[in-house]
Amino acid sequence: MSNHLSFDYSHAINALVEGTFRDAKRAIRDAKETLHSGSGPGSDFLGWIDLPIDAKNHVQSITELRDEIRSKADVFIVVGIGGSYLGARSVIDACTPFHHRDETEILYVGHNMSGEYLASVLAYCEEREVHVNVISKSGTTTEPALAFRALKNWMEHKYGRREAARRIIATTDATRGALRSLASQEGYRALIIPDNVGGRFSVLTPVGLLPIAVAGLDISALLDGATWMRSHCLDEPFDSNAAMTYAALRLGFYREGKSIEIFATFLPELQYIADWWKQLFGESEGKEGKGVFPATAVYSTDLHSMGQYLQQGPRILFETFLTVAHPLIELLVPRSDDDSDGMNYLAGKSFSSINGQALLATAAAHAEGGVPNMTITLPALSIQAIGELLFFFEYAVALGGYALGVNPFDQPGVENYKRNMFALLNKPGYEEMHSELQKRLRSGHRFII
Amino acid sequence: MSNHLSFDYSHAINALVEGTFRDAKRAIRDAKETLHSGSGPGSDFLGWIDLPIDAKNHVQSITELRDEIRSKADVFIVVGIGGSYLGARSVIDACTPFHHRDETEILYVGHNMSGEYLASVLAYCEEREVHVNVISKSGTTTEPALAFRALKNWMEHKYGRREAARRIIATTDATRGALRSLASQEGYRALIIPDNVGGRFSVLTPVGLLPIAVAGLDISALLDGATWMRSHCLDEPFDSNAAMTYAALRLGFYREGKSIEIFATFLPELQYIADWWKQLFGESEGKEGKGVFPATAVYSTDLHSMGQYLQQGPRILFETFLTVAHPLIELLVPRSDDDSDGMNYLAGKSFSSINGQALLATAAAHAEGGVPNMTITLPALSIQAIGELLFFFEYAVALGGYALGVNPFDQPGVENYKRNMFALLNKPGYEEMHSELQKRLRSGHRFII
Repeated sequence: MSNHLSFDYSHAINALVEGTFRDAKRAIRDAKETLHSGSGPGSDFLGWIDLPIDAKNHVQSITELRDEIRSKADVFIVVGIGGSYLGARSVIDACTPFHHRDETEILYVGHNMSGEYLASVLAYCEEREVHVNVISKSGTTTEPALAFRALKNWMEHKYGRREAARRIIATTDATRGALRSLASQEGYRALIIPDNVGGRFSVLTPVGLLPIAVAGLDISALLDGATWMRSHCLDEPFDSNAAMTYAALRLGFYREGKSIEIFATFLPELQYIADWWKQLFGESEGKEGKGVFPATAVYSTDLHSMGQYLQQGPRILFETFLTVAHPLIELLVPRSDDDSDGMNYLAGKSFSSINGQALLATAAAHAEGGVPNMTITLPALSIQAIGELLFFFEYAVALGGYALGVNPFDQPGVENYKRNMFALLNKPGYEEMHSELQKRLRSGHRFII
Repeated sequence: MSNHLSFDYSHAINALVEGTFRDAKRAIRDAKETLHSGSGPGSDFLGWIDLPIDAKNHVQSITELRDEIRSKADVFIVVGIGGSYLGARSVIDACTPFHHRDETEILYVGHNMSGEYLASVLAYCEEREVHVNVISKSGTTTEPALAFRALKNWMEHKYGRREAARRIIATTDATRGALRSLASQEGYRALIIPDNVGGRFSVLTPVGLLPIAVAGLDISALLDGATWMRSHCLDEPFDSNAAMTYAALRLGFYREGKSIEIFATFLPELQYIADWWKQLFGESEGKEGKGVFPATAVYSTDLHSMGQYLQQGPRILFETFLTVAHPLIELLVPRSDDDSDGMNYLAGKSFSSINGQALLATAAAHAEGGVPNMTITLPALSIQAIGELLFFFEYAVALGGYALGVNPFDQPGVENYKRNMFALLNKPGYEEMHSELQKRLRSGHRFII
């Protein structure tokens, strides 16, 4: 097994009609050409391609900021939603062991509208020292803006306005937007979200790098991993290029009517990697009536809930498994004298080795049942391996989006519910839509009970 | 608004062709007849229908056990997977506020095969007083059996064998199985999983009731809510029957090619209710090539990741929203003097009222975009309302399964990966399959990198 991410597609390639794969391969090669020539739609959002290298310029300043924060803060509260928190959270959860999270604890707010959740975080922080990182390109996204407004009040009450300003770091646009103005006015330190990187591709910008560093993780190693994978993706020809092969296989499955991809991790600490993947693929591909529906699962947990459907439901699925060759901790199954549970045949084996066999068993069973699947194996839960993984998916989805004929870097559909919400909330400028929508909703209601 | 669960289907009914709904309605009426006459497949697993009433017999003994456990334990570890933990976890998470969980903390193990996770739970419990509830019909399901084996060792090391036995409660079959034998041999107290209730329908048996009671929640009120909904489901005619209408609408959508149902909660504390729902529907319907694919989401969080796909991806989706009319805590948006974030138009409003408008906005936007949807509203996050909700879904899926022509109460497909796993792990009795499968897997591997 190599020291890098490995990609096994033995349960996938034979499930595709040969012509389908050949065509998909050609489409992915063309997409690569489109991507690197900058001739596709959204080509002003390609900054992520060089981020693994470019972001090295930020390592020193972020490391200094990290040292200051970690020397002062018990809790570091990240305020953000979507791409403004999923990247950081996925890396931090993957690389810090359960119940042993580092001395500076990372909490997340602004990704939901639950007042109860926010109140509970504030109550928890009452007797703790706090730094805040508010992350928003515009500063006006409703969920984080409201959470930050409440948090800013709370910080100023706790520390006074001047000290609060020293403890709040804004990650935002270089020049424009409400959060940039607020940062200037209050004297917050500010980190920059580059103009040419979209939210779901922003984990290697300061959006992700600062929280990851504050969690005690080595952001240089993260960038090293991403840099290694960048070379792999850009330089390897198709037949030895894992990201291109992944992109071609999933395009082939989609074209053969598999409308759902289940991304299943075999370790619970990788759940947020799955959530990050879900946004990356769903938001990049799901437009113009196209795109694979991205669903996530944690196995073997979810085999005991979704296993039945996977084995025998409609054959509209394919799967991508994510696992790790060597866990951080090896726990062995103890021997029992009487073997009353019949588990002595596993005594002395590690939980992780049994988990590994569960993966092989699942992959074979699902393939036989008509669910083709691929397996990505990380050599270890190292920050470097996670860096490889992140770039692998970013590259694959860029190719996949272009091959589908969509712009993988925009998200025009997310505005619809926001417009309705502004109208219902009677935001200035939406008055007319307000009455119209209210009338329409009232007339439509049909309740039972 | 009533004091009970309400069901709004205004964004669903108009999306269906009239004939489709008429046919689905007839199929659901027939399914009800099949269910109550006991003439359908799986009719020896209908114990859940009368559980809301029958389980009242257990309340006193469980309450006494709860009092003893809560007087002694800091931590109550529930060992179980699938239906043996999702019900309890969903109710407990829904009804106990964040970061304010009750004095006896509930932890869960045995639902995954992560040695690191288990080790971290044990480390956390090192200096705490612990009781254990091991939940398994057979006692030989790999994940909980292995976790319990490690935990039993740990308890005996911590407390000695006799005191450990006093602190371990088994929930298992009345007479058969490895866990029943072990309980007798070690002198564990044992609660009974009835023979006529399947795992995913077991939340109102001692499987769910003991952990829920230990978490400090009122199981009588839970059963009262379920009893209320049972009468509603059994007695109301179709047009005023929420569960029958829900079942008919989703059957109609399925027949019109909507292959995915997204169950989206508008509060993060309801995430495990969604996971419980996913097992209930996926495992009951997903067989013989049939069934709606159940996916879950937490809004508005996931609108910032899956929102794009939902609005503009393939139109193969319908949605069911779950929300709560009155939250436990009202947090108000503060006013800001300079309004630099432009949020003053929301000052003085509660987060929950804004969340409520977000739901209405989303429902309208998705319906316009071609994603029909329904909304279930609980009057409050009360245990009684959760009891209503649980029975509502159990009843709807039983009708839905029969209407699809499948047995909603079996799960024949979950054995496939287990057989492969036993073979790969060389379990006694699987030797022949072991060599055959190993050879097949080795020859198939195709790696990149």
